[in-house]
Amino acid sequence: MALLPKALSKVIESFERLPGIGPKSAQRLAFYLLHVPQEELDRFAKSLTDLKSQTVLCSVCKNIAESDPCDIDRNPSREKSTICVVEQPTDVVSIEKTGQYRGVYHILHGSIDPLNNIGPDELYIEDLLKRVKLAVPSVDEVILAMNSNMEGEATALFIQKQLLIFPIKVTRLAHGLPMGADIEYADEVTLRRAIEGRREY
Amino acid sequence: MALLPKALSKVIESFERLPGIGPKSAQRLAFYLLHVPQEELDRFAKSLTDLKSQTVLCSVCKNIAESDPCDIDRNPSREKSTICVVEQPTDVVSIEKTGQYRGVYHILHGSIDPLNNIGPDELYIEDLLKRVKLAVPSVDEVILAMNSNMEGEATALFIQKQLLIFPIKVTRLAHGLPMGADIEYADEVTLRRAIEGRREY
Repeated sequence: MALLPKALSKVIESFERLPGIGPKSAQRLAFYLLHVPQEELDRFAKSLTDLKSQTVLCSVCKNIAESDPCDIDRNPSREKSTICVVEQPTDVVSIEKTGQYRGVYHILHGSIDPLNNIGPDELYIEDLLKRVKLAVPSVDEVILAMNSNMEGEATALFIQKQLLIFPIKVTRLAHGLPMGADIEYADEVTLRRAIEGRREY
Repeated sequence: MALLPKALSKVIESFERLPGIGPKSAQRLAFYLLHVPQEELDRFAKSLTDLKSQTVLCSVCKNIAESDPCDIDRNPSREKSTICVVEQPTDVVSIEKTGQYRGVYHILHGSIDPLNNIGPDELYIEDLLKRVKLAVPSVDEVILAMNSNMEGEATALFIQKQLLIFPIKVTRLAHGLPMGADIEYADEVTLRRAIEGRREY
Protein backbone atom coordinates (compact mmCIF):
# COMPACT_ATOMS: atom_id res chain seq x y z
CA MET A 1 0.00 0.00 0.00
CA ALA A 2 1.39 3.36 -1.04
CA LEU A 3 1.61 5.78 1.84
CA LEU A 4 1.24 8.91 -0.21
CA PRO A 5 -1.08 9.62 -3.15
CA LYS A 6 0.63 9.03 -6.49
CA ALA A 7 0.16 12.66 -7.56
CA LEU A 8 2.03 13.78 -4.46
CA SER A 9 4.82 11.21 -4.84
CA LYS A 10 5.39 12.35 -8.41
CA VAL A 11 5.94 15.95 -7.30
CA ILE A 12 8.26 14.75 -4.55
CA GLU A 13 10.25 12.68 -7.05
CA SER A 14 10.55 15.64 -9.42
CA PHE A 15 11.97 17.82 -6.68
CA GLU A 16 14.29 15.07 -5.45
CA ARG A 17 15.97 14.99 -8.86
CA LEU A 18 17.09 18.60 -8.45
CA PRO A 19 20.61 19.18 -7.11
CA GLY A 20 20.79 20.08 -3.42
CA ILE A 21 17.22 18.99 -2.65
CA GLY A 22 17.01 15.89 -0.48
CA PRO A 23 14.02 13.62 0.22
CA LYS A 24 12.88 15.63 3.26
CA SER A 25 13.00 19.00 1.48
CA ALA A 26 11.26 17.53 -1.56
CA GLN A 27 8.47 16.25 0.69
CA ARG A 28 8.16 19.62 2.42
CA LEU A 29 7.97 21.49 -0.91
CA ALA A 30 5.34 19.13 -2.33
CA PHE A 31 3.13 19.51 0.75
CA TYR A 32 3.58 23.26 0.58
CA LEU A 33 2.38 23.29 -3.03
CA LEU A 34 -0.85 21.54 -1.98
CA HIS A 35 -1.83 24.84 -0.36
CA VAL A 36 -0.94 26.99 -3.35
CA PRO A 37 -3.70 28.17 -5.76
CA GLN A 38 -4.08 26.07 -8.93
CA GLU A 39 -3.22 29.09 -11.15
CA GLU A 40 0.14 29.39 -9.46
CA LEU A 41 0.83 25.69 -9.97
CA ASP A 42 -0.15 26.06 -13.63
CA ARG A 43 2.15 29.07 -13.97
CA PHE A 44 5.02 27.12 -12.39
CA ALA A 45 4.32 24.18 -14.72
CA LYS A 46 4.22 26.41 -17.81
CA SER A 47 7.49 28.10 -16.89
CA LEU A 48 9.11 24.66 -16.82
CA THR A 49 7.69 23.48 -20.16
CA ASP A 50 8.64 26.76 -21.86
CA LEU A 51 12.10 26.99 -20.35
CA LYS A 52 14.05 25.33 -23.13
CA SER A 53 11.86 26.19 -26.11
CA GLN A 54 12.01 29.91 -25.38
CA THR A 55 15.73 30.22 -24.77
CA VAL A 56 18.64 29.85 -27.20
CA LEU A 57 22.39 29.70 -26.90
CA CYS A 58 23.87 32.89 -28.34
CA SER A 59 26.16 31.77 -31.19
CA VAL A 60 28.60 34.62 -30.45
CA CYS A 61 29.11 34.53 -26.69
CA LYS A 62 27.38 31.21 -25.77
CA ASN A 63 25.16 32.93 -23.22
CA ILE A 64 21.60 31.69 -22.60
CA ALA A 65 19.47 34.27 -24.39
CA GLU A 66 16.11 35.05 -25.91
CA SER A 67 17.54 35.79 -29.34
CA ASP A 68 20.68 34.95 -31.31
CA PRO A 69 22.86 37.05 -31.15
CA CYS A 70 21.96 38.03 -27.59
CA ASP A 71 21.02 41.53 -26.41
CA ILE A 72 24.54 42.33 -25.29
CA ASP A 73 26.17 41.27 -28.57
CA ARG A 74 23.59 43.19 -30.62
CA ASN A 75 23.98 46.33 -28.51
CA PRO A 76 26.08 48.82 -30.55
CA SER A 77 27.17 50.66 -27.40
CA ARG A 78 29.00 47.64 -25.97
CA GLU A 79 32.74 47.65 -26.67
CA LYS A 80 33.47 44.61 -28.82
CA SER A 81 37.20 45.13 -28.23
CA THR A 82 37.05 43.63 -24.71
CA ILE A 83 35.88 40.07 -24.09
CA CYS A 84 35.28 38.97 -20.51
CA VAL A 85 35.47 35.16 -20.23
CA VAL A 86 33.33 33.68 -17.46
CA GLU A 87 32.41 30.17 -16.32
CA GLN A 88 28.63 30.52 -16.08
CA PRO A 89 25.76 32.73 -17.35
CA THR A 90 25.11 33.71 -13.73
CA ASP A 91 28.57 35.30 -13.64
CA VAL A 92 27.42 37.63 -16.43
CA VAL A 93 24.49 38.69 -14.24
CA SER A 94 26.86 39.44 -11.34
CA ILE A 95 29.28 41.47 -13.47
CA GLU A 96 26.46 43.36 -15.22
CA LYS A 97 25.07 44.36 -11.83
CA THR A 98 28.29 46.25 -11.04
CA GLY A 99 27.50 48.60 -13.96
CA GLN A 100 31.27 48.82 -14.40
CA TYR A 101 31.81 46.76 -17.52
CA ARG A 102 31.02 47.94 -21.06
CA GLY A 103 32.62 45.12 -23.05
CA VAL A 104 31.19 41.79 -24.23
CA TYR A 105 31.32 38.28 -22.75
CA HIS A 106 32.20 34.72 -23.56
CA ILE A 107 30.63 31.98 -21.45
CA LEU A 108 32.53 28.70 -21.07
CA HIS A 109 29.70 26.81 -19.30
CA GLY A 110 32.00 25.27 -16.73
CA SER A 111 35.65 24.94 -15.85
CA ILE A 112 38.34 22.35 -16.51
CA ASP A 113 37.78 19.67 -13.89
CA PRO A 114 39.58 16.38 -14.60
CA LEU A 115 38.10 14.70 -11.51
CA ASN A 116 34.64 15.10 -13.04
CA ASN A 117 35.83 14.29 -16.56
CA ILE A 118 35.46 17.86 -17.81
CA GLY A 119 38.32 18.71 -20.14
CA PRO A 120 38.83 21.77 -22.38
CA ASP A 121 36.75 20.13 -25.15
CA GLU A 122 33.64 20.04 -22.95
CA LEU A 123 33.76 23.84 -22.63
CA TYR A 124 33.38 26.60 -25.21
CA ILE A 125 37.14 27.28 -25.25
CA GLU A 126 37.63 26.38 -28.92
CA ASP A 127 34.83 28.81 -29.79
CA LEU A 128 36.58 31.55 -27.83
CA LEU A 129 39.86 30.99 -29.68
CA LYS A 130 38.07 31.05 -33.06
CA ARG A 131 36.22 34.20 -32.04
CA VAL A 132 39.44 35.94 -31.02
CA LYS A 133 41.23 34.76 -34.17
CA LEU A 134 38.52 36.11 -36.49
CA ALA A 135 38.24 39.43 -34.68
CA VAL A 136 41.85 39.88 -33.65
CA PRO A 137 42.68 43.40 -34.79
CA SER A 138 39.47 44.71 -33.23
CA VAL A 139 39.83 42.71 -29.98
CA ASP A 140 42.54 44.09 -27.72
CA GLU A 141 41.79 42.61 -24.30
CA VAL A 142 40.54 39.29 -22.95
CA ILE A 143 39.65 39.33 -19.25
CA LEU A 144 39.77 35.89 -17.63
CA ALA A 145 37.10 36.11 -14.94
CA MET A 146 37.14 32.53 -13.72
CA ASN A 147 36.34 31.59 -10.14
CA SER A 148 39.42 31.64 -7.93
CA ASN A 149 39.38 27.95 -7.07
CA MET A 150 41.54 25.12 -8.41
CA GLU A 151 39.35 24.47 -11.46
CA GLY A 152 39.00 28.17 -12.27
CA GLU A 153 42.74 28.77 -11.99
CA ALA A 154 43.51 25.76 -14.21
CA THR A 155 41.02 26.95 -16.81
CA ALA A 156 42.43 30.47 -16.81
CA LEU A 157 45.97 29.17 -17.17
CA PHE A 158 44.96 26.89 -20.05
CA ILE A 159 43.19 29.69 -21.93
CA GLN A 160 45.98 32.17 -21.26
CA LYS A 161 48.49 29.82 -22.90
CA GLN A 162 46.27 29.38 -25.97
CA LEU A 163 45.91 33.15 -26.30
CA LEU A 164 49.68 33.81 -26.26
CA ILE A 165 49.85 33.65 -30.07
CA PHE A 166 47.51 36.62 -30.44
CA PRO A 167 48.69 40.24 -30.05
CA ILE A 168 46.21 40.98 -27.26
CA LYS A 169 46.32 41.86 -23.59
CA VAL A 170 45.15 38.99 -21.33
CA THR A 171 44.10 40.07 -17.82
CA ARG A 172 42.66 38.45 -14.70
CA LEU A 173 40.34 39.93 -12.06
CA ALA A 174 42.18 41.38 -9.06
CA HIS A 175 42.51 39.24 -5.94
CA GLY A 176 42.58 40.78 -2.49
CA LEU A 177 40.53 41.52 0.57
CA PRO A 178 36.78 41.65 -0.02
CA MET A 179 35.23 45.00 0.94
CA GLY A 180 34.33 45.24 4.62
CA ALA A 181 36.62 42.37 5.57
CA ASP A 182 38.84 42.35 8.65
CA ILE A 183 42.54 41.67 7.99
CA GLU A 184 42.52 39.60 11.17
CA TYR A 185 40.08 37.09 9.67
CA ALA A 186 41.42 37.00 6.10
CA ASP A 187 42.94 33.69 5.02
CA GLU A 188 46.64 33.58 4.24
CA VAL A 189 46.30 33.15 0.49
CA THR A 190 43.92 36.11 0.14
CA LEU A 191 46.18 38.28 2.28
CA ARG A 192 49.26 37.25 0.30
CA ARG A 193 47.46 38.18 -2.93
CA ALA A 194 46.34 41.47 -1.41
CA ILE A 195 49.94 42.36 -0.53
CA GLU A 196 51.25 41.28 -3.96
CA GLY A 197 48.58 43.32 -5.70
CA ARG A 198 48.93 46.45 -3.55
CA ARG A 199 48.46 49.76 -5.34
CA GLU A 200 49.87 53.24 -4.79
CA TYR A 201 47.66 55.47 -2.72
CA MET B 1 17.64 45.58 -20.60
CA ALA B 2 16.77 42.33 -18.95
CA LEU B 3 19.85 40.35 -18.00
CA LEU B 4 18.26 36.93 -18.21
CA PRO B 5 15.81 35.55 -20.79
CA LYS B 6 12.21 35.91 -19.65
CA ALA B 7 11.64 32.12 -19.76
CA LEU B 8 14.55 31.66 -17.37
CA SER B 9 13.45 34.47 -15.02
CA LYS B 10 9.99 32.93 -14.79
CA VAL B 11 11.42 29.59 -13.63
CA ILE B 12 13.65 31.41 -11.14
CA GLU B 13 10.64 33.36 -9.79
CA SER B 14 8.61 30.17 -9.44
CA PHE B 15 11.35 28.54 -7.39
CA GLU B 16 11.89 31.67 -5.30
CA ARG B 17 8.27 31.49 -4.13
CA LEU B 18 8.92 28.13 -2.49
CA PRO B 19 9.77 28.14 1.21
CA GLY B 20 13.45 27.77 2.00
CA ILE B 21 14.65 28.51 -1.53
CA GLY B 22 16.46 31.83 -1.84
CA PRO B 23 17.32 33.81 -4.99
CA LYS B 24 20.71 32.12 -5.45
CA SER B 25 19.33 28.58 -5.11
CA ALA B 26 16.44 29.43 -7.44
CA GLN B 27 18.91 30.65 -10.04
CA ARG B 28 21.05 27.55 -9.65
CA LEU B 29 18.03 25.23 -10.03
CA ALA B 30 16.77 27.07 -13.12
CA PHE B 31 20.17 26.86 -14.83
CA TYR B 32 20.36 23.20 -13.90
CA LEU B 33 17.00 22.55 -15.57
CA LEU B 34 18.32 24.02 -18.83
CA HIS B 35 20.45 20.88 -19.14
CA VAL B 36 17.62 18.46 -18.39
CA PRO B 37 15.80 16.65 -21.26
CA GLN B 38 12.52 18.27 -22.35
CA GLU B 39 10.55 15.10 -21.40
CA GLU B 40 11.75 15.41 -17.83
CA LEU B 41 10.69 19.07 -17.70
CA ASP B 42 7.30 18.11 -19.11
CA ARG B 43 6.96 15.36 -16.51
CA PHE B 44 7.84 17.81 -13.73
CA ALA B 45 5.32 20.32 -15.13
CA LYS B 46 2.57 17.70 -15.36
CA SER B 47 3.16 16.53 -11.80
CA LEU B 48 2.57 20.12 -10.63
CA THR B 49 -0.62 20.68 -12.63
CA ASP B 50 -2.06 17.34 -11.52
CA LEU B 51 -1.06 17.71 -7.87
CA LYS B 52 -4.28 19.18 -6.55
CA SER B 53 -6.80 17.68 -8.98
CA GLN B 54 -5.65 14.13 -8.24
CA THR B 55 -5.59 14.34 -4.46
CA VAL B 56 -8.47 14.70 -1.99
CA LEU B 57 -8.76 15.33 1.72
CA CYS B 58 -10.04 12.19 3.41
CA SER B 59 -13.29 13.18 5.15
CA VAL B 60 -12.60 10.76 8.02
CA CYS B 61 -8.97 11.42 9.00
CA LYS B 62 -8.21 14.60 6.96
CA ASN B 63 -5.19 12.98 5.36
CA ILE B 64 -4.18 13.87 1.80
CA ALA B 65 -5.33 10.85 -0.17
CA GLU B 66 -6.21 9.47 -3.57
CA SER B 67 -9.71 8.44 -2.53
CA ASP B 68 -12.20 9.37 0.17
CA PRO B 69 -12.16 7.61 2.65
CA CYS B 70 -8.42 7.02 2.35
CA ASP B 71 -6.71 3.62 2.05
CA ILE B 72 -6.04 3.39 5.78
CA ASP B 73 -9.62 4.19 6.80
CA ARG B 74 -11.02 1.72 4.26
CA ASN B 75 -8.65 -1.02 5.36
CA PRO B 76 -10.67 -3.51 7.46
CA SER B 77 -7.55 -4.76 9.22
CA ARG B 78 -6.76 -1.36 10.77
CA GLU B 79 -8.00 -1.03 14.35
CA LYS B 80 -10.58 1.75 14.38
CA SER B 81 -10.48 1.78 18.20
CA THR B 82 -7.17 3.68 18.31
CA ILE B 83 -6.79 7.13 16.76
CA CYS B 84 -3.32 8.63 16.48
CA VAL B 85 -3.52 12.42 16.19
CA VAL B 86 -0.63 14.02 14.25
CA GLU B 87 0.19 17.49 13.00
CA GLN B 88 1.04 16.74 9.37
CA PRO B 89 0.46 14.06 6.71
CA THR B 90 4.24 13.51 6.69
CA ASP B 91 3.99 12.35 10.31
CA VAL B 92 1.70 9.55 9.14
CA VAL B 93 4.41 8.46 6.70
CA SER B 94 6.99 8.40 9.50
CA ILE B 95 4.78 6.42 11.86
CA GLU B 96 3.70 3.98 9.14
CA LYS B 97 7.36 3.29 8.35
CA THR B 98 7.86 1.91 11.86
CA GLY B 99 5.39 -0.89 11.04
CA GLN B 100 4.41 -0.71 14.71
CA TYR B 101 1.03 0.98 14.53
CA ARG B 102 -2.18 -0.77 13.45
CA GLY B 103 -4.72 1.92 14.37
CA VAL B 104 -6.05 4.86 12.35
CA TYR B 105 -5.01 8.52 12.17
CA HIS B 106 -6.35 12.03 12.46
CA ILE B 107 -4.38 14.82 10.83
CA LEU B 108 -4.65 18.35 12.29
CA HIS B 109 -2.73 20.09 9.50
CA GLY B 110 -0.72 22.22 11.88
CA SER B 111 -0.43 23.12 15.53
CA ILE B 112 -1.79 25.89 17.73
CA ASP B 113 0.56 28.81 17.14
CA PRO B 114 -0.80 32.17 18.37
CA LEU B 115 2.27 34.06 17.07
CA ASN B 116 1.32 33.03 13.54
CA ASN B 117 -2.42 33.48 14.13
CA ILE B 118 -3.16 29.78 14.11
CA GLY B 119 -5.79 28.97 16.73
CA PRO B 120 -7.71 25.72 17.34
CA ASP B 121 -10.30 26.71 14.73
CA GLU B 122 -7.69 26.72 11.96
CA LEU B 123 -6.94 23.05 12.64
CA TYR B 124 -9.11 19.92 12.31
CA ILE B 125 -9.62 19.71 16.08
CA GLU B 126 -13.42 20.16 15.96
CA ASP B 127 -13.57 17.32 13.42
CA LEU B 128 -11.56 15.10 15.76
CA LEU B 129 -13.95 15.79 18.66
CA LYS B 130 -16.99 15.06 16.48
CA ARG B 131 -15.35 11.90 15.21
CA VAL B 132 -14.61 10.68 18.75
CA LYS B 133 -18.10 11.64 19.93
CA LEU B 134 -19.82 9.67 17.15
CA ALA B 135 -17.62 6.62 17.58
CA VAL B 136 -17.10 6.74 21.32
CA PRO B 137 -17.90 3.22 22.47
CA SER B 138 -15.75 1.77 19.71
CA VAL B 139 -12.85 4.20 20.20
CA ASP B 140 -10.87 3.49 23.34
CA GLU B 141 -7.59 5.32 22.86
CA VAL B 142 -6.46 8.60 21.36
CA ILE B 143 -2.67 8.97 20.98
CA LEU B 144 -1.53 12.57 20.85
CA ALA B 145 1.55 12.41 18.59
CA MET B 146 2.32 16.10 18.32
CA ASN B 147 5.85 17.43 17.88
CA SER B 148 7.57 18.05 21.19
CA ASN B 149 8.00 21.80 20.74
CA MET B 150 6.02 24.67 22.32
CA GLU B 151 3.26 24.61 19.69
CA GLY B 152 2.96 20.84 19.73
CA GLU B 153 2.76 20.74 23.54
CA ALA B 154 0.10 23.47 23.56
CA THR B 155 -1.94 21.66 20.94
CA ALA B 156 -1.72 18.35 22.81
CA LEU B 157 -2.77 20.02 26.07
CA PHE B 158 -5.71 21.74 24.38
CA ILE B 159 -6.97 18.53 22.78
CA GLN B 160 -6.42 16.50 25.93
CA LYS B 161 -8.69 18.89 27.88
CA GLN B 162 -11.42 18.64 25.22
CA LEU B 163 -11.25 14.85 25.34
CA LEU B 164 -11.69 14.65 29.14
CA ILE B 165 -15.48 14.32 28.77
CA PHE B 166 -15.15 11.07 26.84
CA PRO B 167 -14.52 7.68 28.55
CA ILE B 168 -11.33 7.06 26.59
CA LYS B 169 -7.64 6.71 27.29
CA VAL B 170 -5.58 9.66 26.06
CA THR B 171 -1.86 8.98 25.63
CA ARG B 172 1.24 10.82 24.41
CA LEU B 173 4.34 9.45 22.69
CA ALA B 174 7.19 8.68 25.08
CA HIS B 175 9.94 11.25 25.51
CA GLY B 176 13.50 10.25 26.24
CA LEU B 177 16.90 9.70 24.74
CA PRO B 178 16.89 9.02 21.01
CA MET B 179 18.47 5.68 20.06
CA GLY B 180 22.24 5.86 19.72
CA ALA B 181 22.47 9.11 21.67
CA ASP B 182 25.17 9.85 24.23
CA ILE B 183 23.91 10.87 27.65
CA GLU B 184 26.78 13.36 27.76
CA TYR B 185 25.35 15.29 24.83
CA ALA B 186 21.64 15.04 25.69
CA ASP B 187 19.97 18.34 26.55
CA GLU B 188 18.65 18.82 30.09
CA VAL B 189 14.96 18.66 29.20
CA THR B 190 15.34 15.42 27.25
CA LEU B 191 17.38 13.86 30.05
CA ARG B 192 14.85 14.96 32.69
CA ARG B 193 12.05 13.37 30.61
CA ALA B 194 14.12 10.22 30.18
CA ILE B 195 14.55 9.94 33.96
CA GLU B 196 10.88 10.67 34.65
CA GLY B 197 9.79 8.10 32.08
CA ARG B 198 12.26 5.37 33.15
CA ARG B 199 10.97 1.80 32.93
CA GLU B 200 11.74 -1.36 34.85
CA TYR B 201 14.34 -3.56 33.26
